[in-house]
Amino acid sequence: MASSWVPDMDSASDFSLANIPFGIISTPDDPKPHAAVAIGSYALDLKVLCASTDLTQIFPGTRGLAEAFSQPALNAFAEMGRAVHRQVRAGIQDLLSTATAHPSVLRDNTALRARALLPQSTVKMHLPMAIGDYTDFYAGYHHAHAVGVMFRGPDNALQPNYLHLPVGYHGRTSSVVVSGTPVRRPVGQILLPPPPPPPADPAEAAQQPPPPPSRPVTAPSRKLDMELELGCFLGGAGNEMGTAVPVDGADEHIFGYVLLNDWSARDVQTWEYVPLGPFNGKNFATTVSPWVVPADALEPFRARGIENATELQGYLREEREDNVFDIRLEVDLTTAEGDTTTICRTSSRNLVWSFPQMIAHHTLGGCPMRAGDLLGSGTISGPGGVDERGSLLEMTENGKKEVLLAGMDARTFLKDGDTVTLRGFCGADGARVGFGACRGRIYSAVER
Amino acid sequence: MASSWVPDMDSASDFSLANIPFGIISTPDDPKPHAAVAIGSYALDLKVLCASTDLTQIFPGTRGLAEAFSQPALNAFAEMGRAVHRQVRAGIQDLLSTATAHPSVLRDNTALRARALLPQSTVKMHLPMAIGDYTDFYAGYHHAHAVGVMFRGPDNALQPNYLHLPVGYHGRTSSVVVSGTPVRRPVGQILLPPPPPPPADPAEAAQQPPPPPSRPVTAPSRKLDMELELGCFLGGAGNEMGTAVPVDGADEHIFGYVLLNDWSARDVQTWEYVPLGPFNGKNFATTVSPWVVPADALEPFRARGIENATELQGYLREEREDNVFDIRLEVDLTTAEGDTTTICRTSSRNLVWSFPQMIAHHTLGGCPMRAGDLLGSGTISGPGGVDERGSLLEMTENGKKEVLLAGMDARTFLKDGDTVTLRGFCGADGARVGFGACRGRIYSAVER
Repeated sequence: MASSWVPDMDSASDFSLANIPFGIISTPDDPKPHAAVAIGSYALDLKVLCASTDLTQIFPGTRGLAEAFSQPALNAFAEMGRAVHRQVRAGIQDLLSTATAHPSVLRDNTALRARALLPQSTVKMHLPMAIGDYTDFYAGYHHAHAVGVMFRGPDNALQPNYLHLPVGYHGRTSSVVVSGTPVRRPVGQILLPPPPPPPADPAEAAQQPPPPPSRPVTAPSRKLDMELELGCFLGGAGNEMGTAVPVDGADEHIFGYVLLNDWSARDVQTWEYVPLGPFNGKNFATTVSPWVVPADALEPFRARGIENATELQGYLREEREDNVFDIRLEVDLTTAEGDTTTICRTSSRNLVWSFPQMIAHHTLGGCPMRAGDLLGSGTISGPGGVDERGSLLEMTENGKKEVLLAGMDARTFLKDGDTVTLRGFCGADGARVGFGACRGRIYSAVER
Repeated sequence: MASSWVPDMDSASDFSLANIPFGIISTPDDPKPHAAVAIGSYALDLKVLCASTDLTQIFPGTRGLAEAFSQPALNAFAEMGRAVHRQVRAGIQDLLSTATAHPSVLRDNTALRARALLPQSTVKMHLPMAIGDYTDFYAGYHHAHAVGVMFRGPDNALQPNYLHLPVGYHGRTSSVVVSGTPVRRPVGQILLPPPPPPPADPAEAAQQPPPPPSRPVTAPSRKLDMELELGCFLGGAGNEMGTAVPVDGADEHIFGYVLLNDWSARDVQTWEYVPLGPFNGKNFATTVSPWVVPADALEPFRARGIENATELQGYLREEREDNVFDIRLEVDLTTAEGDTTTICRTSSRNLVWSFPQMIAHHTLGGCPMRAGDLLGSGTISGPGGVDERGSLLEMTENGKKEVLLAGMDARTFLKDGDTVTLRGFCGADGARVGFGACRGRIYSAVER
């Protein structure tokens, strides 16, 4: 991979020349959100670039980019499809490369560089897409298995449908926020745990009043959790209602990827979710990382997912076996006192369903999908110990055990003031393809 | 109620002067979708009206209406809030009344009448709102109870949470379509029913091979159903993330109501829905009626909902007892041969949770709601016989019995070529407040 002339390139940066992720920024000079790419510790302002340059020279054959990059979301660009994304990414890689074929456009244009290449610390990041629909899947096999063991025992850990179809549910679009947005601990309706069993001595038990039955209360969640997920933004023209996307063509419907923290109030979820699924336990906040890593940037990091011995229905059978990505994932928990502990290290290859399989299943009945739709992978956990688990629910066995933290601290679930940061990258130093931080801090509940 | 000077007013029309529902039309002269109201068999084109009239004269104190009514969805108008909706509705009622205070604006302005007052048969209806999020509740008590009896028996018909909170789930926004849109029978993954039990004679059973286990297939749904629901579109400024809407103020967040058919593939749903809820069984199509009946038009038809003896959490306790509406609801099934049978007659008062309660619950944890969000009531069934049931699932006890139709026909579930039409209205003849038809015809599945 060529290197970049951009100053201060750090070999550990998520945003090497091999990446070129797209995001939405606002700047001191232009507070209206618009498009940019990340390179090293800088953001290249694509609106400024387009206003100053004849782009047909750099991105031949592409039209409407100046208009698309002036929008407050990446949807118009995402709709242009993979072929355009490839071409634009290649064009930007050339512009930012030491060996650029167009040195005069940016590298040697000091005035434009000063206006278009901005330290990321000086720009504000916004939600990258206007999300039409958000669907959260449950494809993290080890997570599904561990949670199943916890609630139904090892013999019935996986539901009968789990290995036949990518189980998923519709999430709440309005509560998807960009990294850095404060997360308010939700108040919810919670079923108090059943009272302790009566004393063993029957004579003593007879003197006690009967225990009160379980009853719901309205209170701040006591089991606030995070979930480590990979998010996938769709691009292209979408599918018409009534038509399905074949699994082997589904990759062409993908714009790019983000990290996703599906914050979950476990106690709220437990009481509400039968029979229609998670609702208030999830819809108070979902955080995504701000830079959308283009699908093509992850192509070199393909890997095989978790083997599924089930005989799959035809519409889920993929030609390629390396249908997921091997992205190194980490979760940091930082206490209010500022002590940070990495509580989870795993890989995004721990999925039993690929995003193309999710898209093929989602559209099987004709459900229309559109550029800007967001898919979550489901919580990703590794097969190993507690430090590979993508949620506190698993790490603590639903609050029974503690996770030890730096600073002589420990957690079962999240405390007010905690900050959770998801990180992910692949590739060698100097050519990393990563996501930057997906971060949220917990603020105390508003009493209702 | 005053009468209208609009020609051909039929006393059985859903769109009397007491209604004034808002919709999005396109016309031969203006194919770009924009706002209108329905009056009798006409649509009053609000874009044309606004372009020709100084609206501050008719709607004093309102600003931005011309811009809002030129949009392809009613969201901008809905965001203006109940006070503006009241004023605009009153202004339009005056314009259309025989006793109008502004006869020269429209009634006596022949040229403008010809351009602005269009037979509904000449305009095309579009989805009235750009829907941000769609949530479907389950507040139809008799439906929930009947379905519960069917699957769990009479002693466990209702889940433990059912009377404590309005159970709901997030639906699929992209598949919400306006009345008249064709509905394609979905293909889905379906678990074949278990094989018949072995013969009773053990000797004979020993000679038989073991029965094959249940296995999924990919096939067109064999249990395609309709669901009679009331839909509610939100208006106003919405709530900020992290804040809750109090139940007694929630009415001010409502823009208006539609009929909603939550088409359901029961066999797909049965296999997929554990543990995360309905997905492909629902996301292939949801049909809404095109005219949004303003919340204020339904105020005179308030009624008490189904009594709930449960001690409710404070955030769900409403001051008012008449918290639902008594709307007469009907479902017609028309066969491909053209024979129509009214298969259900009931009332929207058969809800155990009101829309304000749904909104208060939905926002309890801080979930942000916005103008254009759609809430479904859940299937509405009456307490009586089969002809009060809002779904074929209930009418036929999941396919065990047949519903008899005109033309010597019968159904367990829907056949290709069937048309389902929901209707609803309240009020006396000549002053009806109704919804018009919410209609969809079933087209054969595309084999995958």
